Amino acid sequence: MMHRNRVRCALLAAVFCAVLSAPGLSAAPTQASLDLMPLPANIVLGTGWLALKPEFSFAFTGYKDPRLERAVRRAADRIAARTGIPLAIAAAADPSQAFLQIDCGAAGLPVQTFEEDESYVLTIDASRAVLRAPNPLGILRGLETLQQLLALGPDGVHFPEVDIKDAPRFRWRGLLIDVCRHWIPAEVIKRNLDAMAAVKLNVLHWHLSEDQGFRVESKKYPRLHGMGSDGLYYTQEEIRAIIDYARDRGIRVIPEFDMPGHSTAWFVGYPELASAPGPYEIERHYGVFKPTMDPTREETFKFLDGFIGEMARLFPDPLFHIGGDEVEGHQWEESPSIKAFKTAHGMKTNEDLQAYFNKRIQVILKKNGKRMVGWDEILHEDLPRDTVVQSWRGQESLARAAKQGFAGILSNGYYIDLMYSAAAHYAVDPLEKEAASLSEAEKALILGGEACMWAELINPETVDSRIWPRMAAIAERFWSPQETKDVADMYRRLEIMNSRLDWTGATHNLSYPKMLERLAGKEGAIEAVKLLADFVEPLRGYSRHDSREYSQTTPLNRMADAARPESFAVRAFAGMVDGMLSDAPAFSRNRREIRHRLMTWKANHESIKALAANSALLAEVLPLSERLAALADAGLTALQSLESGQPLPNGWLEEKAALFQALEKAPYELELMVVEPIRKIAEAAQKR
Amino acid sequence: MMHRNRVRCALLAAVFCAVLSAPGLSAAPTQASLDLMPLPANIVLGTGWLALKPEFSFAFTGYKDPRLERAVRRAADRIAARTGIPLAIAAAADPSQAFLQIDCGAAGLPVQTFEEDESYVLTIDASRAVLRAPNPLGILRGLETLQQLLALGPDGVHFPEVDIKDAPRFRWRGLLIDVCRHWIPAEVIKRNLDAMAAVKLNVLHWHLSEDQGFRVESKKYPRLHGMGSDGLYYTQEEIRAIIDYARDRGIRVIPEFDMPGHSTAWFVGYPELASAPGPYEIERHYGVFKPTMDPTREETFKFLDGFIGEMARLFPDPLFHIGGDEVEGHQWEESPSIKAFKTAHGMKTNEDLQAYFNKRIQVILKKNGKRMVGWDEILHEDLPRDTVVQSWRGQESLARAAKQGFAGILSNGYYIDLMYSAAAHYAVDPLEKEAASLSEAEKALILGGEACMWAELINPETVDSRIWPRMAAIAERFWSPQETKDVADMYRRLEIMNSRLDWTGATHNLSYPKMLERLAGKEGAIEAVKLLADFVEPLRGYSRHDSREYSQTTPLNRMADAARPESFAVRAFAGMVDGMLSDAPAFSRNRREIRHRLMTWKANHESIKALAANSALLAEVLPLSERLAALADAGLTALQSLESGQPLPNGWLEEKAALFQALEKAPYELELMVVEPIRKIAEAAQKR
Repeated sequence: MMHRNRVRCALLAAVFCAVLSAPGLSAAPTQASLDLMPLPANIVLGTGWLALKPEFSFAFTGYKDPRLERAVRRAADRIAARTGIPLAIAAAADPSQAFLQIDCGAAGLPVQTFEEDESYVLTIDASRAVLRAPNPLGILRGLETLQQLLALGPDGVHFPEVDIKDAPRFRWRGLLIDVCRHWIPAEVIKRNLDAMAAVKLNVLHWHLSEDQGFRVESKKYPRLHGMGSDGLYYTQEEIRAIIDYARDRGIRVIPEFDMPGHSTAWFVGYPELASAPGPYEIERHYGVFKPTMDPTREETFKFLDGFIGEMARLFPDPLFHIGGDEVEGHQWEESPSIKAFKTAHGMKTNEDLQAYFNKRIQVILKKNGKRMVGWDEILHEDLPRDTVVQSWRGQESLARAAKQGFAGILSNGYYIDLMYSAAAHYAVDPLEKEAASLSEAEKALILGGEACMWAELINPETVDSRIWPRMAAIAERFWSPQETKDVADMYRRLEIMNSRLDWTGATHNLSYPKMLERLAGKEGAIEAVKLLADFVEPLRGYSRHDSREYSQTTPLNRMADAARPESFAVRAFAGMVDGMLSDAPAFSRNRREIRHRLMTWKANHESIKALAANSALLAEVLPLSERLAALADAGLTALQSLESGQPLPNGWLEEKAALFQALEKAPYELELMVVEPIRKIAEAAQKR
Repeated sequence: MMHRNRVRCALLAAVFCAVLSAPGLSAAPTQASLDLMPLPANIVLGTGWLALKPEFSFAFTGYKDPRLERAVRRAADRIAARTGIPLAIAAAADPSQAFLQIDCGAAGLPVQTFEEDESYVLTIDASRAVLRAPNPLGILRGLETLQQLLALGPDGVHFPEVDIKDAPRFRWRGLLIDVCRHWIPAEVIKRNLDAMAAVKLNVLHWHLSEDQGFRVESKKYPRLHGMGSDGLYYTQEEIRAIIDYARDRGIRVIPEFDMPGHSTAWFVGYPELASAPGPYEIERHYGVFKPTMDPTREETFKFLDGFIGEMARLFPDPLFHIGGDEVEGHQWEESPSIKAFKTAHGMKTNEDLQAYFNKRIQVILKKNGKRMVGWDEILHEDLPRDTVVQSWRGQESLARAAKQGFAGILSNGYYIDLMYSAAAHYAVDPLEKEAASLSEAEKALILGGEACMWAELINPETVDSRIWPRMAAIAERFWSPQETKDVADMYRRLEIMNSRLDWTGATHNLSYPKMLERLAGKEGAIEAVKLLADFVEPLRGYSRHDSREYSQTTPLNRMADAARPESFAVRAFAGMVDGMLSDAPAFSRNRREIRHRLMTWKANHESIKALAANSALLAEVLPLSERLAALADAGLTALQSLESGQPLPNGWLEEKAALFQALEKAPYELELMVVEPIRKIAEAAQKR
């Protein structure tokens, strides 16, 4: 009952949000002039400025607690770092004279919930900034907006006069980080929590156990992490520190322990949990594997009762994710005792057996004060309605769940490991497609969405660049009004956010030059490699897995790992070409720069060849570099034709057809993203 | 007596080092082909390679302890990070099959001393690497050499077959970091310790108290840090952690508490220590100030006895630095009681009074098992001969001390805050000039040298770039044979080290783009600003202080703070010009690139102007950008003349004279480093 009430309260909160974010209230023309992401629901921009002062004084005029004070100091520290100005950060002697006034209505809950109000009002005039919110969470969100408003000007650093009323569209705005396929240490999680806070995300979904690793210290069952992790796990102290760190930033930490499948690593230390005799080893490869828990033995539930009890105390969040996805039936079907159990209990399918397992787990969770979350597969009408479904399948699955009364979140369309563009993710909306026709009450059950950073092809060096900056666009989809859909403006702001996120400590930009240097095989010699890497993107979807057998021990040090999931350089070049081809003034402005680029690419291949002679990692992409040079050469011919008015030779474009064809497969697992814009130049020349 | 014995032992060690580093033993032609810094004393290069294996197995065939095992794992972890290869790092089941064999002779001392042998022998053949050393310190040094030998090749990652016998020339190879003028947090110290270890430095001289801040927690006198630090101090726990961290890397931590001058911050909490009544405030400006301890009151020594007792326990190193520099006589001369004391004790000068103070302190130090270190000014014939003199004055002062029997180290010539070139520091040798004529026994008293990173114009964002990479050249001066003097080869290797040091965590390269972005006033728009900043260097010596009144609150966010102390880009351009002017083949090869550069610089001013319109920080350097454009324009004219054979107009060079004159002063505190190479082009054209 408690949980269903929670959903009802959440429903009311959603109505409140909807009022605040009604499109009529938002001052659209001014929004675009501010570089904010996610865009606030409502902005009124003034004409003046509030100058940053060396004395950064603050005052709490309402509720106040240490978390809020830490947040204000953290915001001021980051402003000092970004501007390079050594601010004197202190509580104002006279609160009415404070540079930043914080007016918080009341204390937050000891453990953050989705019912807490995250709205805030930020008013900046020439004399001060005033941030008001009913709850500390709103203050945290508003402090991030304040930081994003910071601008350099001809006279120094300042904030624009502005009046912002803001609240999130969705209550659940999450990021899943898989720390099992590859180990992701605590400091990497922390810096990503800072970046998440910067774009107002509020859930870290921590995928903590898998076939490939069990990543949490269990004092009750020490062989879980002791034998299932290669020594790469979080101590309980580290877990608590990360939960505190996240709470300080208004982020809930929801743990996931995937069961009954995806659980090989459990069985290394406790083979008796499995549905077939051991011994088991940590799985090094990727996919769906046979080892599955045995739901027919009482000992299994006794173990899970002990384990969940321990974890329920370690993780304060009322939500507990049990995975439940991709149960491979093999072991269940091969086991005579499991078959007998199914027959005895009238279970026809493995789904029935999994539903039985889930019901048993749900009872354990409930006893521990937890509400169950799981992937689509757990959905079963026998489950209590406080179960939350995370849909990797899509809005249709989510809508079906909502119609049955289950709350849910959308992850389909937000799998950021698949390297799709920010625009592709931005276009996905939890309340569109099949969910659009739900009743308002059913819609309120759709709590939001969550991006998934699966870790087969990432490691601590690359994970940040696979999350950021694309995640900021997804965060905007989760936070901003549904009508926020201007893709060009999203990209304009995303590029700014990309740089700004550096200040959170996220290493999405920092790691790039060192990875390029490694490819070059020579210290400091990254220019030629960067010229190539800037214009390629890793293959999308599951194509990289198709081209070779990856495992935990495969080095992730190739150009496909260094290349940005979405290249800003490509976007800029494509835009330049479009401009050149679409209007005359841009033609003369852009063609020189385009010719310069094409000439540089053509010449670059010699440098790449020279470096590749001494670098195995670079030698792999020689065909790619050669193709870029050939494309640049074709582009130059076409450009020359456009400029001179001399037509191209008969059949020229047909001759080059292979060059302009997108590759179906590539052993180097990269796509050359300038094929399309250069093809446009060629086609324009041909048309003349 | 104990301390004099130590000196004698050290003398023997020095003789041992001298044998190892005799120039006859070193295989000069092969050294240059390896990118090592500091250069080892003796290298014999083989012809084959040892390939890095995914299983990085190690074995200790001699003495073994946890410090050594941590060091091996740290080295292997860094190799994994640099190569991007997920190494399986583990002790070998069969030691004879280990990839890396470590043969250490014996345990190190519980507290590191200069008598410990740092020599090592590293032998790499096609099957394994073997590292031998009499003492763990040698193993630590050899592991750094091993990492520097790592190279990428056409077939993957490998180490060259090599036989290295190495030992340091000097026992004391230090870096002073001033954490008082600007606060430098613990994590910044730690990453710089890693970088220090990478170039085999062995002393962190921690300048912990000053007029501008008292940076250590004192439990006995809590008002020292409580009122003297703005809350910016190291807890004793942090101090201990840093000492442990340094010890793991073979680095001693020698604390300095400057007395009786440079001590205003002490008096904020304890004004009774001063020679004039308080109250006192933390000094915000820089220079030599009046507040000075009162050496005539017994209470002063009682306090210092308590304080030194506490710090002697906190810092295990047997050396204790008392500063003793720049005592400003004002307070002593104004105080009737101090004047009376001097008369009563027959002291004629303030130097006599300081000598009395030092003798009293020396007794306290001795009681606590510490040996006194101080700056030149402490030198007085009454002091015990185990006192160590750190010379900011030069070799003459050091030689005079040695003749009196005092050990000493050289810091004159190694003040890296003054922004001199690596070559300038590299040319300074503790045993040259006046020290060259000392007897061998006196020379043995010269323990080495120490670079000084004074902190008036640095902060945590910039300190790394003011230390690195130049410090690596100084480290080579301290470690490598005296004959290692090839400046061109030093720069070749220094540029490689500059990139390699990124892997230690030092941020000398990382901070640069973000500082440029701040100057640009626009996220992501650093290209134009970098083009300018890459070719300027901050003013040398004390010129920056001449041009404005700096204090602790002055922002260090200008181009003078972002610009590299020594620009590799400038060196490359100057070399290109020299090549063009000196020989015909280089002329045709280089002139196109030089023309391209000059054209780019000329055009860049427009971009800078556009950005500067919205950035106060960039507007400051508009005249600099304009001057670069004018120089580039003149260079293009001269180049055109050289290429065409058309002479320059009469009086052209005279007309441009002002342009080619080095600026005496510049409000932006920067020098344009391309003036000289462009002037060379102009003069060559004029000569035709």
